[in-house]
Amino acid sequence: MHYPEPVSKLIDSFTRLPGIGTKTAARLAFHVIRMKEEDVVEFAKALVNVKRNLHYCSVCCNITDVDPCRICTDKSRDSSVICVIQEPKDLVAMERTKEFQGYYHVLHGAISPMEGIGPDEIRVAELLTRLSDEKVKELILATNPNIEGEATAMYLSRLVKPFGIKMTRIAHGLPVGGDLEYADEVTLSKALEGRRELF
Amino acid sequence: MHYPEPVSKLIDSFTRLPGIGTKTAARLAFHVIRMKEEDVVEFAKALVNVKRNLHYCSVCCNITDVDPCRICTDKSRDSSVICVIQEPKDLVAMERTKEFQGYYHVLHGAISPMEGIGPDEIRVAELLTRLSDEKVKELILATNPNIEGEATAMYLSRLVKPFGIKMTRIAHGLPVGGDLEYADEVTLSKALEGRRELF
Repeated sequence: MHYPEPVSKLIDSFTRLPGIGTKTAARLAFHVIRMKEEDVVEFAKALVNVKRNLHYCSVCCNITDVDPCRICTDKSRDSSVICVIQEPKDLVAMERTKEFQGYYHVLHGAISPMEGIGPDEIRVAELLTRLSDEKVKELILATNPNIEGEATAMYLSRLVKPFGIKMTRIAHGLPVGGDLEYADEVTLSKALEGRRELF
Repeated sequence: MHYPEPVSKLIDSFTRLPGIGTKTAARLAFHVIRMKEEDVVEFAKALVNVKRNLHYCSVCCNITDVDPCRICTDKSRDSSVICVIQEPKDLVAMERTKEFQGYYHVLHGAISPMEGIGPDEIRVAELLTRLSDEKVKELILATNPNIEGEATAMYLSRLVKPFGIKMTRIAHGLPVGGDLEYADEVTLSKALEGRRELF
């Protein structure tokens, strides 16, 4: 005994999403059955639109519905700084801090020999083009603080060195609200290493 | 700073599903962006189809794409038994046991005065019609073993009594593979109450 075909097809589609198993997929599918038809149609449209109406910004490579994206066309930002990040989600996280006023460059990944991702698979060439064209004074390497992110930052720092641009890496340390007791040794030693003088 | 409109719309749709918060919704949306367009279109179609091509079976009230549903038209089943369940998902669970060969009746809910769900909100009238029309000898009340399910079973048993049909309730007890130590008192006392003679 299986579900009627329309239901099993929907369950199938849900299970293809990350972190959703068959039980959750069935629960979601039955929720959809009980949803208002207009809401379901809107959901379906949103799915297709995200594929059809999204492009990569020709400047920063972020996903956008207009090209260049709204950040790249924002003249009020500081054009002397570019912050290099791995994913569009990281850009949103950075923007939430309201601290950064420069422009971004989205790599769409990090170098990972284990997964066969080299510099050609991520948006490194686009970054180099920007560096030769624009008057950039500082490049903030804000890739993730893990092996792949560090490797990418290291790779980029060597590659960009000939341009004579100042390069910085976001700080490692204890998260705010964290607890020394629960910090892992590596983070703690990085926090110690990066200590700053008071007053 | 927000996501581009197509992305935020999709995130919005995902958060309307049960158990999906904004973080998960964003993760799912970005997964959709990276999916193949044909898979996304299929997903969107599956969503709309589940609303448009599904109906309630005119006999058992289960959701189905053909009417009457495949179970109700299966002549090899035992027409003398009807198993009453709350949800279509319960039917699939029952079918997985491969133990039950009769027909089903899906109530689509349980009586719950707290939520304002009375007998008129669930498919009780349809069940009574079936009982007068068909030659049913046994009605298995397989509503959930919780307050609402018990109340529904109790209500149905009183309602169906005048029909002179044998009524049974699925057994309460310890789950197979369970542990006496971790069983709650109510389940354990029900298991004791329902003990059966060996040999």
